[in-house]
Parts: sequence; structure tokens; C-alpha cells
Amino acid sequence: MAVGSSNSFDLVVLGGGMGGYAAAFRGSQLGLKVALVEADKIGGTCLHRGCIPTKALIESAEFYARLKKAREFGVTLSGEATVDYAQMARRRDQVVRRMWSGLKSLVAKNHVEYVAGRGRLEGPGRVRVVLDGDDAQPGAGGERLLEATDVILATGSRVKSLPGLVSDGQRIVTSDDVLKADRMPASIIVVGAGAVGVEFASMYHDLGATVTLLEYLPAIVPLEDRDVSRELERSFTRRGIRVVTRARFDPAAVAVEDDGVCLVVGPEGGEAGELRAEQLLVATGRAANVEEIGLETTRVEVERGFVKVDDHLRTKEAHVYAIGDLVGGLMLAHTAAHEGIVAAHTIAGEPIEGIDYDAQPRATFCHPQVASVGLTEQECEARGLRTKIGVMPFQAVGKAIIGGDYEGFAKVIGDAESGDTLGVHLVGPHVTDLIAEASLGALLGATPWEIAMATHPHPSLAEAIGEAAMAVDGRSIHI
Amino acid sequence: MAVGSSNSFDLVVLGGGMGGYAAAFRGSQLGLKVALVEADKIGGTCLHRGCIPTKALIESAEFYARLKKAREFGVTLSGEATVDYAQMARRRDQVVRRMWSGLKSLVAKNHVEYVAGRGRLEGPGRVRVVLDGDDAQPGAGGERLLEATDVILATGSRVKSLPGLVSDGQRIVTSDDVLKADRMPASIIVVGAGAVGVEFASMYHDLGATVTLLEYLPAIVPLEDRDVSRELERSFTRRGIRVVTRARFDPAAVAVEDDGVCLVVGPEGGEAGELRAEQLLVATGRAANVEEIGLETTRVEVERGFVKVDDHLRTKEAHVYAIGDLVGGLMLAHTAAHEGIVAAHTIAGEPIEGIDYDAQPRATFCHPQVASVGLTEQECEARGLRTKIGVMPFQAVGKAIIGGDYEGFAKVIGDAESGDTLGVHLVGPHVTDLIAEASLGALLGATPWEIAMATHPHPSLAEAIGEAAMAVDGRSIHI
Repeated sequence: MAVGSSNSFDLVVLGGGMGGYAAAFRGSQLGLKVALVEADKIGGTCLHRGCIPTKALIESAEFYARLKKAREFGVTLSGEATVDYAQMARRRDQVVRRMWSGLKSLVAKNHVEYVAGRGRLEGPGRVRVVLDGDDAQPGAGGERLLEATDVILATGSRVKSLPGLVSDGQRIVTSDDVLKADRMPASIIVVGAGAVGVEFASMYHDLGATVTLLEYLPAIVPLEDRDVSRELERSFTRRGIRVVTRARFDPAAVAVEDDGVCLVVGPEGGEAGELRAEQLLVATGRAANVEEIGLETTRVEVERGFVKVDDHLRTKEAHVYAIGDLVGGLMLAHTAAHEGIVAAHTIAGEPIEGIDYDAQPRATFCHPQVASVGLTEQECEARGLRTKIGVMPFQAVGKAIIGGDYEGFAKVIGDAESGDTLGVHLVGPHVTDLIAEASLGALLGATPWEIAMATHPHPSLAEAIGEAAMAVDGRSIHI
Repeated sequence: MAVGSSNSFDLVVLGGGMGGYAAAFRGSQLGLKVALVEADKIGGTCLHRGCIPTKALIESAEFYARLKKAREFGVTLSGEATVDYAQMARRRDQVVRRMWSGLKSLVAKNHVEYVAGRGRLEGPGRVRVVLDGDDAQPGAGGERLLEATDVILATGSRVKSLPGLVSDGQRIVTSDDVLKADRMPASIIVVGAGAVGVEFASMYHDLGATVTLLEYLPAIVPLEDRDVSRELERSFTRRGIRVVTRARFDPAAVAVEDDGVCLVVGPEGGEAGELRAEQLLVATGRAANVEEIGLETTRVEVERGFVKVDDHLRTKEAHVYAIGDLVGGLMLAHTAAHEGIVAAHTIAGEPIEGIDYDAQPRATFCHPQVASVGLTEQECEARGLRTKIGVMPFQAVGKAIIGGDYEGFAKVIGDAESGDTLGVHLVGPHVTDLIAEASLGALLGATPWEIAMATHPHPSLAEAIGEAAMAVDGRSIHI
């Protein structure tokens, strides 16, 4: 019998995004017979419509923005530097294709059976797949019924707009549209200042567009530490991005005109004014794909749009697990992968610690970058924790001065009673890489004193974390 | 009595480099009355003739080298990019001045008394300082005799040449000369492929010079893991740097001519040939400044040119400590600072762990960068350790592809018996920052499994470490 002709599996993973394929690969590494069902392309939102293409564009934008410093760094440019957005878009797509191709080869390497089609639960241990045809035509390949001892649901999420505000792909767009386009607008209004909103606001500004950023809440990146929000808003404003917090407008009243969009926006309680731009980007969050996957044939529970799970990603139905954006929370690709790994080990009967969301890093790729692990200062206050806090500005870090990019700081929050580390918050150069240290620290329960006693290489940007940790006890060297 | 008029201190630190000032600041933070004696400028080799000015030049060189990728990234340059080395040198000096000024203000902030002059022990608890005059003229300020309960020696090191090869500052130069110069040679022979040698070789190549790198040993960066040495040599060679390992030549026979230098070099056992270049850079290590500091008035022991200390930096003379380049070993600024902190706590009677050299990160800022913590594979073999090894190439890391810089890899060495992490070796983009995670891991005794279970942000370069750690047990996701 040819590989793939059996329909009986130890584990069927429904959804081939980062969480899904991590679960499938690890499950197979642990000895399970695994099928991975995906209706679109393996890699999911992150690879095809999220992290990867966005960061590719941001990398190009930062490349361009940094050229303004050429003379300072001792490089003479005899002519002008201009943005070739079509090439940026081509490179974005090349990066995605290259990684997609790598991923496809990993399916075979990990002995996972890839089933191209739309899967749906028919009771806990059965997944009916409407197969793609040979030409990848959805539904043209007939059907296949998979039997599974365990199922992991990983169907992800989709962009969500505001009531009355409908994307038309031209004037009112979502990140999906931006990541397909090969041209950029000269002016843009970004609605929503979460990770996606600030990344695009920052990127378009770097590329020379006129950018307005609207946020309903009183702070941009509202889930981050308030000092980080403040620092980022200051930086955006200084660079020339118009930031409106507590922004109020009627989504249904956004007017689409020939040359752009027009809306009337005011800060809460303040005077409203007319805003115009070539495009409006809706970056108001994502909705989990809980529909049309057969949850109603199981005891899986959905709460506020997300599948309910425990810390080992078990749903209310035995042998059915859910991971990734489907379970809400941070909705981050690396957390989805971690959840997938925890679920795979649990299914394979290999003991593993449940997932600790306070040890999950968050990373936002605006300029300056934002990254964090654990509790914010405002969360500590809400929980009534007594804190001691150390802050190290990047302008006191030699490597940041050398790099010419020294906005921001590292902030370490310690518990004044237990001595534990409660949170690490970074805003500044390369912090989406630097946060990995804090993530390992969180997993191992490292105290500020231990982080401080780890020798940080000199000169490096990582020194900011070490010095902030020292500053928790008033014992920093370089500040 | 004015501050500074008393000559009696709890702690006198002799030498104001990074180790010295870290010891002085921390000592004062712990309640000690501290004097810091420095004959030159606070900041020492690292700030004035080492890490900082070097990295500033390297940053400029990488800025220039990266412009070759402009078109790929979607940036059109209408003209030519050229190197303005004089401006690179000005920026280098500005960076140094800025950090120097910051450091000077930290002396006052930390209530440390700064004594400008040349200090010398007169027995264990006495330091005679020949003071600078008001115009910073050495010796013009008379003398001052300091009494100290404890003394920390931190007089650092100086560049060392080969027998018969004398720097003339023009044709035969050292890093000291390069870091003062405001022009660069069109061609250069670099002698010695340790950290300093490969950094300058890489930098000059990036700036367009013709570079030959000579190394006596069979590998460049010979103290690093052999796979790292190999990868770096491959990268250098591919870029067009001529690398000669097992290089043999007579240092005394180097000919200085009107337009450059000429020497006859051959690989060991191979045929020798004539090499010519505008300059020859001697990067063959550093000698500790053990002379003329009065060691003979104490029981301090010197062995092979370095002061002998225990893991709390105690010399053989009670109450006399030594740190930094003076004690040899890694001769790195951040290790000197760590040693200074350990010594300060010990003197203040605050219990602290002794220094663990296997937890000290090493960082080299060539392109690609090199960084490591712990044992190399060859050291593991020499100690008879059974290992299991995981490797993650950066070309499988999304963020590296996005950055367009994906040479190199992360290599994690685990102990097959104990399960401990023995070493982490990185070569590739931004690894001098990424190594901080491994450094914290080493301090806390993190196993490869724990490093793997720490969630690494996606997409980030730090994923390389997480995946290499997973690969130790054959369980990586992305390779």
C-alpha cells in the first residue's frame, strides 16, 4: 500500500500554520503517525499574510530610512536614494516563497502526511477533508475521511474590521491587502495601534508616506507597559507620525472618494476634524476561525469567540486539543508553536510543563522595536504587587551609540517581596532579538540579581538588560 | 575638610578601565569609601584604544558594505557610494568622547574619588600616586600617598608585537595606531587572526582594501569552536580576503619600503612567496601591565606575565586583588567588569559566587560575527566528554533571510551523560547580542532542553539558538 493510502492516524492536525506544523513535526518526532490537513498553504497567516512578509517590508523600509545617516557614518552618496516599492514587494514575496519551499521539504523530512484540503470534525476522532484537486482547486479532489486517536485544532484567525467599515481592497484595506500590493499610498490613516497598526504606521512613515495613527484607547501598543507606550508615542510624534489616542469616529461614516478616504475624527471629548488620506488601513484585531470546522459535533467549548483550553491545550472534548490564534490570548506565532509542542508531547504521553503565558515573549517590529515578557507595571499595580524597578536607557549603552540608534530603554520589574522578576520591557534597537534572554530567564525563574550577574558581552545592546536588572537594586554600573 | 582631602580609603582601585571603574562604582554602592587612580583617561583600553573605537569603525564599514544590497532591498541609488574615512574616524572619536564624558559624570554620581596620576603600591595597603598637574601633565601635580584597607589592581594591558617586529606607526602598525589614524591603507597584511586581527581584516575588506590575514595556528579565531573557525574562514575567503593559516615568516625580516612593507611568507612546509602591502597590522596579542606598579613590595605572585588570583580575584597578598587583563585569561572588558564586581562584593563582605569562566561570553565583531559561551567541541574532546550536538544554520531562520544576511549557524553542545549544556557557539548576524541568552543560561545551568523550551520570539535571529538546542535531541522544528 502506498504511503498515505491509510486513513488511520495517531494524530490529525487541522491547520498548517506555525502552531499546526510545529505540533505535527514534533508529534511525528515523538513516534506518532501524523496527518497535517491544510486548506491553503503550509505556513499559515504568519508566513503568507503576517509576520514574514510584514518584516520583509519593514526591513526594506529601515534600509531606506537609515540612508539618511550615511554622511554621519562616513559614507558619501553622490546621488539620490529613492524607494522602489515594487521591488520591495518582489523581495517580500521571494522571502515568503523561499521559506515556504523550505517548510514543504520539512513535511517529508518529518514523515508527516500532508493532506491538502478543507477539514472538518465529524465527532471527536474523525476529520472529513474536502480535498484539493491536482491543480490545487479546492474541492476538486473528492473527499477523504481521516480517523484519529487525537486531533489538534489549529485553524488560526482572520482579520477583523469594525462594524460598518468594510475593506474594499483599494481605499479601505487590511494587512492582507497591504501584503499583496505592489504599490504604496502617499498618505494613510491606520486604525488601531496594536502590533500590526504600529508596524505599518512606522513602515509607511519610513518610506515617506504621510501617516496618521488612530487608537481608541488612551495609549498606543496598549497591552505594553505604559512607559513603553509613552516612549513609542514620543518617538512616533518626533519622527512626524500623527498619533491620535482616544480617537473617536463612526466607522460606518467613513467616506470613500475618488482619490481616497475621508473621515471625521476627534479625541474623546475633544473637537472633531476631517481627516483625508489615500488609504485607510484597518488594524483592529483578528477573529478566530471557529466556524465550519465541526466543533458542534464535539463537546469543545467556545467562549467569546475562542476555543477554551487548559494549560496543556486540552479542550472540553477528550482527545481534541486546540492551539494558536484559535484559543486567543497572545495570538503570536511563536506561542502557537510552543502550544503545539506542549500538545504534541501531551498526546504522545511525554510529560511536559503546561504553557506559562507570563513566559511568552511579545515582539513588535515598529521603529523603535518593542518587546516584552511578563507583567507590565500597570498589571503589577492591578494585582497589588509591590515592585522595584530598574531602567537603563539605550543612550547610556555604548553599542547603541555606535549603531546611531539609541532611543528607548530596558525596564526590569522585580517583586519587592519575593525578589522574583515580574516583567522585562524593552523599547529600542534590536529588542525583538534581545528579549530572548528574558524569555529564558522567565522560564527558569531568574531573579533580577541573576540576570545582573550573567555577564553581558561588551559592547552589546544586551547590556541594557543587565544594567536594568542591576538598577533594580540601585547597583548599575553605566547609569 | 573638602572631599578628597583625606588620604584614607576602604578601597583603592589602581586603573580606571572597565574592570577598575566597575569595581570602584560597585564598591562605593556597597558602602565603601573608594578612590580610583588612573594615569590616563577613565575608560581604559576598551573605551579609548579597543572595543569602542573599533566597533564604531566596523559599524561604518558595515553601513558601507550593506549598500551593495540596496537594489535587492528596493532602494535605488542614483549615484555612487564612497568611503569618507576621515569622517568615519571623526565619528569614531565622537562616540568615544561621548561615552568618556558619560563615564566621568558617573564617577561623581557614585561618590568615587578620582585621583589622576600614576599609582604604585608601597606595600599591601599603600598606594603612592604621582599626580597629574592641572593641565593633565603627568607628574606635575606632586605626590599623594593613599592608605587603603583593600586594593584592587586593574592596570590592564598593552599591545604586544612579535620579536624583531617593531611598530613604526606608519608602515608597521598596531591597533593603537589604527584607532588614531584618519586615513586607511589601500592594502594591508594583518598578522594574527584572533579577535582583533579578524575584526580589522573584515573591516578593511568591507571598506575596499586588499586584505591578507596571516595566522600561525592551523585555524583563524583559533580559540573558537573548529566549526566556527571553518565557517569564518570560508566566509572570508568567499568575500575575497586572502587567508593564510599555519603562516610562517621571519618577523625580523619584514622590509619597510617607501611605499609599503614586504615579507616572505609561506604556509608551514609549503612554498614561501613575497607579500606586499601598504601596511602591516600586528595583532598578536597583549601583554599585562605588571611592571612598575610595585608588585615587588607585596607577596603578589606573577606567573607567565599575569597576576595569579583565585576565583574571587584574591592575589597571594591578603587585601590585594587583581582583575581584568592583568590576570590574563579571556582579557575581555565585560569579564574584567564582572571580576571587578566579584572583587568589590568580596571586599565589602557581601557573599558572592566566584567567577565562572565557562559562563563568560566571547564576542568578535568581524563579519559574520562570532560569539560563544563555554566549551568548544575540541575542548570537550580533550576532556573526554561524550557530547550530543545540535546545529541550526541561519539560512533556515526566517529573520536572517529577511535581513539578507544568513551566513553561519548556532551550535549547541550538550553533555550526553549529564544532559548539561557544555557550550554554545554562534557565527552569523548579530550573534554578539544573541549570545547574552546563552550567558544567562550558563549562569543558571540551563540544559539544551530548557533552552529549547524557552519560547524564542518569531521572527527573530534568536530562534537559531532555540532550534539548535532542540536539535541536540533531534527535535528541531525548522531544520
